[in-house]
Amino acid sequence: MPAKLSIEPRLLLGPGPSPVHERILEALARPTLGHLDPQFLRIMDEVSEGLRKAFGTRNRMTFPISGTGSAGMEAALANVVEPGDRVIIGVNGVFGGRLVEMAKRMGAEVVAVEAEWGSIVPPERLLEALRAHPDTRVLAVVHAETSTGVRQPLDEIGAAVSRTDTLLLVDAVTSLGGLPVEVDKIGIDVCYSGTQKCLGVPPGLAPITFSARAMDRIATRRAPCQSWYLDVNLIAAYLGEERRYHHTAPINMVYALHEGLTMVEEDGLEARWRRHAEVGAALQAAMVERGFQLFAQEGYRLPQLTSASLPGGREEGPLRKALLEQHGIEVGGGLGPAKGKIWRVGLMGSGATHQVVERLLKAIDALIPRS
Amino acid sequence: MPAKLSIEPRLLLGPGPSPVHERILEALARPTLGHLDPQFLRIMDEVSEGLRKAFGTRNRMTFPISGTGSAGMEAALANVVEPGDRVIIGVNGVFGGRLVEMAKRMGAEVVAVEAEWGSIVPPERLLEALRAHPDTRVLAVVHAETSTGVRQPLDEIGAAVSRTDTLLLVDAVTSLGGLPVEVDKIGIDVCYSGTQKCLGVPPGLAPITFSARAMDRIATRRAPCQSWYLDVNLIAAYLGEERRYHHTAPINMVYALHEGLTMVEEDGLEARWRRHAEVGAALQAAMVERGFQLFAQEGYRLPQLTSASLPGGREEGPLRKALLEQHGIEVGGGLGPAKGKIWRVGLMGSGATHQVVERLLKAIDALIPRS
Repeated sequence: MPAKLSIEPRLLLGPGPSPVHERILEALARPTLGHLDPQFLRIMDEVSEGLRKAFGTRNRMTFPISGTGSAGMEAALANVVEPGDRVIIGVNGVFGGRLVEMAKRMGAEVVAVEAEWGSIVPPERLLEALRAHPDTRVLAVVHAETSTGVRQPLDEIGAAVSRTDTLLLVDAVTSLGGLPVEVDKIGIDVCYSGTQKCLGVPPGLAPITFSARAMDRIATRRAPCQSWYLDVNLIAAYLGEERRYHHTAPINMVYALHEGLTMVEEDGLEARWRRHAEVGAALQAAMVERGFQLFAQEGYRLPQLTSASLPGGREEGPLRKALLEQHGIEVGGGLGPAKGKIWRVGLMGSGATHQVVERLLKAIDALIPRS
Repeated sequence: MPAKLSIEPRLLLGPGPSPVHERILEALARPTLGHLDPQFLRIMDEVSEGLRKAFGTRNRMTFPISGTGSAGMEAALANVVEPGDRVIIGVNGVFGGRLVEMAKRMGAEVVAVEAEWGSIVPPERLLEALRAHPDTRVLAVVHAETSTGVRQPLDEIGAAVSRTDTLLLVDAVTSLGGLPVEVDKIGIDVCYSGTQKCLGVPPGLAPITFSARAMDRIATRRAPCQSWYLDVNLIAAYLGEERRYHHTAPINMVYALHEGLTMVEEDGLEARWRRHAEVGAALQAAMVERGFQLFAQEGYRLPQLTSASLPGGREEGPLRKALLEQHGIEVGGGLGPAKGKIWRVGLMGSGATHQVVERLLKAIDALIPRS
């Protein structure tokens, strides 16, 4: 093992992690505290408060799960789904598919409402499935499908689901901090995210929030949550006044999230959404100009994650490798049916600037000379 | 939210997290890479290799789980236990109890072999239970019971269990890097730890290792692991040659673990065990001299975690608070039946030095004048 880690920095423009600002790296390296130290408990409270603002919610149970985004997905489902429960899931990419896989492992009866990769899941089809299965316990959708770059519209779904006893569960891994995620306004019951996307914090925590309606459902479970580690009732006893030890939180990662949320607050959420929207639109226009073909359905393109096939049917793999090796820029490749066919370019957090777009376009022009 | 995190550093002498060396904090703050970047994959391979040395194993499947120690416990059980499986668990403190709780949530038929808090679980009682239930799928014990300071002897159990079809699962959260944990020599099939104890790395990862026998068991499961996030088969596809995306690893935490393992290698494992043993013995002698009563059974005391009641029946809470507030030193209180009765003093990782012991004793003497 080498004595020192030698790392050549990259410009992270893939589907996440996004570039981490120096301030956040500095926060990460502050002295470690104990998880029951009053100083740390105050920091944790401030993080919960910052997350409430980012999620647009007043939910008491709002905190970071001690794991990455997929742990947030598992925590969301494991707490509100019981074996035999019917769950409707919109599937138009990898992360919808992952929700299905996890829910099945938990013994749920899954109704998958599938749509083509690159398209939204039409809200009316989800609501049709809900009318066909009025006993549905949870309806789940992915707000920002990282595998395709599609933004799922939520308003109509939220309005309809909140008139039923079904809970609405939303994956906001790639949207939180980059797009409006208005949990209370839309009527979302369980919403989770990751730190390494539009919040610009390294991976390692999954912000999550549970509505009062979700907490009521959890209180009347027939059996405890199958996961002890992710059981929100046990975590509540640590976060609440009792401060009862549950597990040791990832202290330094919580510092980094604290700093990331401070930066979100300094930016202002709406200015941050605007920045992501403008920069993403600029990149998409410039890529189209260069012959890239956008993969996601028009009108529903994520500004923070652009998926596109390459000009003139060029192979994506070798050019992606050259971009990394010759220009130090990471972009992502396709997944599933889009494997080998597209690039996924993320402009998230402190990567969402016009200077970054210029640097990327310059590198693209060097690799793919404009005809 | 305050613009800057202001943290007053503490000397961490509780049951973990332990003091984090400046080198490790620096590693934590290196530039974030993508989880599929060849540079990061190399770092991950080196971490696996360092963990193999620390665990005393040649197991291929040796890696850090993306969560804290309790996520390691859940990953260990969730991968090898199926609903209806019989599991024997030694219980002499909080962490044995936690194993029982998790295994029950997974649908296991648990046989708890209980012993008094502060005592070991006599190996013959565990082996008796195994003879009474020859269909047992897993036998689990806690090597270093952090709630009591007891070291569980493993040799006899390992020798007996490896002659059966039962898998041996060992919690080494507080022992790895501080006491010999010889996975291959003892015949342990699944062993997990945490980074924030004797490895001296912040909390956030759970090193784990699976024997070939355990991987065979996993390959013949009747149903997939109930946890998608912790499924070792899926993680294997990321760690293996295929490098298939599973979840985004906590990149910067992996840097910190890399640096921690580099420091273990520089120390030498045996020298590190010796240092923990000597410093712990010195502290225990000095505490007895001051009227503390050691809680753990003689002959089975962990050097890295000393549990003791206070001189002259003094209340532990106010003195522990004074130690933190007046001297900046964190020690732990008791849990469960030992709540309010004992201190738990950790000398782990870079906290296991004679200078640290001197600083602690000086503070104790200031708070509890020697008669």
